[in-house]
Order: sequence, then C-alpha cells, then structure tokens
Amino acid sequence: MTNHASAHSTSIVNHQVRLAARPVGLPKPTDWKLTEEPLPQVGEGAYLVKTLMLSLDPAMRGWMNEGKSYIPPVGLGEVMRAGGVGRVVASRQPDYPVGTYVSAGLGVQEYRLIDSSNAHHAGAMKIDPTVAPLEKWLNALGMPGMTGYFGLLDVGQPKAGETVVVSGASGAVGQTVGQVAKLKGCRVVGIAGSKAKCDFVVRELGFDACIDYRASDVREELKAHCPKGIDVYFDNVGGEILDAVLTRINLKARIVICGAISQYNNTTPVRGPSNYLSLLVNRARMEGMVVFDYAARYPEAIEAIAQWMKQGQFTSREDIVDGLNAFPDTLLRLFSGENFGKLVLRVARD
Amino acid sequence: MTNHASAHSTSIVNHQVRLAARPVGLPKPTDWKLTEEPLPQVGEGAYLVKTLMLSLDPAMRGWMNEGKSYIPPVGLGEVMRAGGVGRVVASRQPDYPVGTYVSAGLGVQEYRLIDSSNAHHAGAMKIDPTVAPLEKWLNALGMPGMTGYFGLLDVGQPKAGETVVVSGASGAVGQTVGQVAKLKGCRVVGIAGSKAKCDFVVRELGFDACIDYRASDVREELKAHCPKGIDVYFDNVGGEILDAVLTRINLKARIVICGAISQYNNTTPVRGPSNYLSLLVNRARMEGMVVFDYAARYPEAIEAIAQWMKQGQFTSREDIVDGLNAFPDTLLRLFSGENFGKLVLRVARD
Repeated sequence: MTNHASAHSTSIVNHQVRLAARPVGLPKPTDWKLTEEPLPQVGEGAYLVKTLMLSLDPAMRGWMNEGKSYIPPVGLGEVMRAGGVGRVVASRQPDYPVGTYVSAGLGVQEYRLIDSSNAHHAGAMKIDPTVAPLEKWLNALGMPGMTGYFGLLDVGQPKAGETVVVSGASGAVGQTVGQVAKLKGCRVVGIAGSKAKCDFVVRELGFDACIDYRASDVREELKAHCPKGIDVYFDNVGGEILDAVLTRINLKARIVICGAISQYNNTTPVRGPSNYLSLLVNRARMEGMVVFDYAARYPEAIEAIAQWMKQGQFTSREDIVDGLNAFPDTLLRLFSGENFGKLVLRVARD
Repeated sequence: MTNHASAHSTSIVNHQVRLAARPVGLPKPTDWKLTEEPLPQVGEGAYLVKTLMLSLDPAMRGWMNEGKSYIPPVGLGEVMRAGGVGRVVASRQPDYPVGTYVSAGLGVQEYRLIDSSNAHHAGAMKIDPTVAPLEKWLNALGMPGMTGYFGLLDVGQPKAGETVVVSGASGAVGQTVGQVAKLKGCRVVGIAGSKAKCDFVVRELGFDACIDYRASDVREELKAHCPKGIDVYFDNVGGEILDAVLTRINLKARIVICGAISQYNNTTPVRGPSNYLSLLVNRARMEGMVVFDYAARYPEAIEAIAQWMKQGQFTSREDIVDGLNAFPDTLLRLFSGENFGKLVLRVARD
C-alpha cells in the first residue's frame, strides 16, 4: 500500500448519499440519507478512486423503483448508483496507478473502492483529461454521448437528406444526437423546454430549428419545421410529444426509444402512445435502446466525437453544480427542466 | 364483344352495397345503402368479373373512416371496397378470357368491370381453383395468408426454438402466422376469444397452447405458456392484450403490428400501449406492416403455402355466409368475435 492510500484510509471519511425510501412521484428529501463511513482498506488488486464529478441522469429515477428493469434497482440503504469521473488516490492494482483518471460507476459518494469483486460492475475506463475537460467525459465522451451516437446511428439509421427530430434537445443525449445527425447530412429539428434552450441548440449546436414545447403547439410546429415529414425521431421524453411526432412520421420511419422523462415520476400509469397505429400505416418501427449494449464499441464513438470536437465541429454544454450534499435537490432539476445542458455534480476539484 | 358479355350487359343488373354515412363506433344499418345499376359495357381491353366470394376483413372498418391511412378511405356513396374472387364472364382482354378465375378488388357488388382505368387499383391476379377451393384464395392463399406469411417471416423474423405469440389466433391472419411459425420450429401460443377457437388452433392447427382471453387472466396464462418469455408477438388486436404481452417479452423481441381490432370501433381515443417502455428495457422493437408492400413476392408465399397444404402440413378454416345483402350484418361478426375462421361472403355459387 502506498503512503497516499494509507493516509486516506486513516484520516478521511467517505461521505455518501444513500437511498432511504422508494419515492412515490418526485423524490423527496426523506427518500435520502446522508451517511459517512471510514475509507475502505485497499487490498491486493484493488484501487481507490476519489470522486471528482458525478453524472446526474433521468435514468436514475428508474433505478430507484422496485422491479425488473434493464439493471437491478438500487437497494434500500445502498449508496445511490451514479456514473462519474475521478482520480485514483491509492492503488494495489498496477493497471490503475495513483494519478490515473477513470470514468466508472462511482456512486453518490466521495470515494469508491474498486476491486475484483466489483470491477465489472463499476465498468471503469481510463480517461484522458488532456483530450477534453473532465465534464466532457460525462457528456459527449461519456454515457450520454455514447447513447446519442449509437442510438442515432445504429437504431435510427439516418440517411443524408432525411429529417431527424430529437426531444430533450439541449440535454446531454439530445446535444449529441442533433450534432451527429447534422454531421451526417440530415435536417435536424430539436424540441426543448425554453427559448434559451432552443436558441442554444440552433445557434451554438447548429440545429436547423427547435420547438419550444412549453410555448407552442408542438403539432403545428412539427408541421412547419418538418415539411418533408419525420424520418427519425429520437425520443427522450415520451408522453404527448411522442404522440405528436407519430402524426408526422414518414413511411419506414424509425423511432428510437431512449427514455421517457415525462413519465418517470408518474404516480398514475404511464401514458402509452395513442397514435401507435401510425407505425402500421407508415410501416414504421419503434425500438428501444440501452447504451450498455454498445460497451465494446465505445472507443469508436469516443474517437469520432473527440475528433469532431478537435475540428470545432462538435460542442457540448454542461450545467455544473457543486457539492455532494446538493445531490437530492440537484437531481430534481432534471424533472423540472431547470438544468440547461448535461447536469453534473462536482464533488471535488481534484 | 362476345355474345356472353352482350347478354350480361343487357339483361342483368348489378346489385351493390354502398357506403351511405361514415360510422361512429360500430357500423349501423343506416351507414349502408343497397343499390342496383345496369351492367357496364365491356369496352376494348376490359373484362367483366362476376363476384363469387368476398373477403370480410377488420381493415374494412378503417377504410370507412375519413382521413389519411395506408389507402384512401371509401368515398361516401361509393361501392364498399372489398377483395374477392370471381369468374370472368365477358371479356375484350385476351389475357383474361371468359372463364378465368381471378382474385381482385371487386367491391361489395355482384359484378366488377376491370379496364385500363382501374386495372392497377383492382390488383387482379389469376387464381387456380384446382390448386385449392376458391375460399382458400381469400384466406391462406389470399391477403390474410400473405399478411401472416410476410409479417411473421420478414418483420417478426422468428428463429427455431423461439416463442411466438399471436392474437386473433383462429382468424384469417392468425391461422397462417401460427402454422408458419410451427413449420419454422417455434413454440406457438395463440390468443383467441372462445374455448372452441382455442381447441381448434391447438388440435387442428397444431399450436402448442392457446389462451382464451375472455375466460382467463391473459398475463397469468402468458406466464404459464411462455416459460422462456416471448420473442415474437404478432398483434392483430391491440388494447389490453398488447399491454399484457409487453410485460413478458424477451431481450430483442419483435412485435409485429398488423392490426388493432379491439380499437377500430372506438369513439374514444385509441388506447396506447402503457407498457411500451418495455421496448426500451428489452431493446425490443415494434414495427407496423402492410401486406401490399409485399405484392411482388406473393407468388413466393403462395407456392410455399400451397405446397404445405398439399403435404397436409397446413390447413385453414373459413366461415362462409351467403348473400350480398347479408354484408352489413356479417361484417359486424368480426367485431363481436362471432366469426370462427376467415369470414367469407358467398355472393354467387358460380
């Protein structure tokens, strides 16, 4: 064990945010419990990561519910699951020496021990902060970027000249979807929740148009901005917007179901898309995607996006909030639509 | 013009069923008008078909509504659209001499003139009554058979050993789906609306199991009969059954949306599938199909199914009702579930 690790494991505690109760609707303060515990011992083959930034994502709401999903729910009393980036501060694992930056399933806590018992689950990947700042590794070069890249290209299969619509356009996934679609020669129309967000995706990300769903009639605006209909819809929101898009899809359209943030805090049943028979009329398909299925291909997407960034053809925006204890309140911003860009919690500066 | 044609065009009238009003909910007697008119002249290049049997299909309900669909609605005052089989009784078209049997868009009427102005729309195809009785050309060797064959194989893409579920199992399309899936080595579970229908698809068509949705809890029965989950669901009904299936699908499942008979007479909005997010969790897809897209490949399916029939590996059941004027009442049997097998209206014996 290095002196560094030793110092950490004796004089510092690990603050954590744990799930105290399964929320009904929006998570309440009492659904969380702030705890602290001593730093774990770093055994042979293990390494300790200090959390620098955590990714806050709509999917987190799903992990808090009981029941079968694409990954098991977070158990009551467990540290809340979260992806993040951090720095190795103690190590008995030669592949991850002290000073290595990693992206991993760190959880909402200050330190995470990764050893052979949880290495697979933590999904650690080395990252290079000289390629892009750390927060980008939680956005365009992280899970949201991977989700947008593979969801759009593999499931949506856009062709040059087609019209691509993306909801949650200024959010973490939407930014990538729209910019990749533009780079592939598509007309891109975003849907977002404020004029500022719409201005951002049009002016800074280069979308062709953006519909402010809070201030306009989405059906009418889709008609105006998608004069040739919709070939690919990348859905992050579900609900009424999905139904509106279904009325405008083209023959053989592809709808990528990536999320349904409008429905995650429902205490009533999910609203199914009433217009799903448009799939029949238009011989269209609606297909779900989960980014983990593409894990083996992340390097391909990271290389492509990093290259576009370097060439000034791709940008991304993050909304960074400071402090581990701010987690419960900050998470709620995703559901109120208050966040603007990828929501990141900064736990430590370095 | 032959003498035959001449005789027809002077001494016989053509009885017709026309759409008088757009139905709200189930079609009422007053939505129809029975008319008669003289037989049309058979001009150069045209031929006159005497209707022998008509196909009665759930899709007809959609054609009666105003608004965009995969084909234009039937206009008010027009003869109701229907596919059928008939015999050429007068001809000035050498490719279709008198005595030729054809399958075509005949409409709900006793005679249909096919000439260059409507030949494409009528979609006439010669049929061979020595290969199979006429009613089979409206069932397994007709549109329902084509729908089941291509919908299952091209869209559903079942692999041997997978579990295929089909609703409307004893209906025209369901019979084909289930039997083709069995021939491809799948486990096949039907869903139908009575014990007699279930017994039929299990005992006579060889399905592995069948769920009587009126007499049982569909979710529980799916659990019992699909112990390895559902890989392909061929949906003819929509509504609650689609939602029940969505709770039991496997990773990468395929849902073929062929129809939604439970929703066609709704006066309230269509019920969207509340459980559609199961597509996300399971990376599954839901895709619409319209049989006309496969027109160029009908001969391939007809050959395959006719061969299976000859070998005694494929059977089909029709429910034949007599008389053109019985059309309005007979159509309703589709929506009450009273028909048992492919519903056929016999307009003339020969």
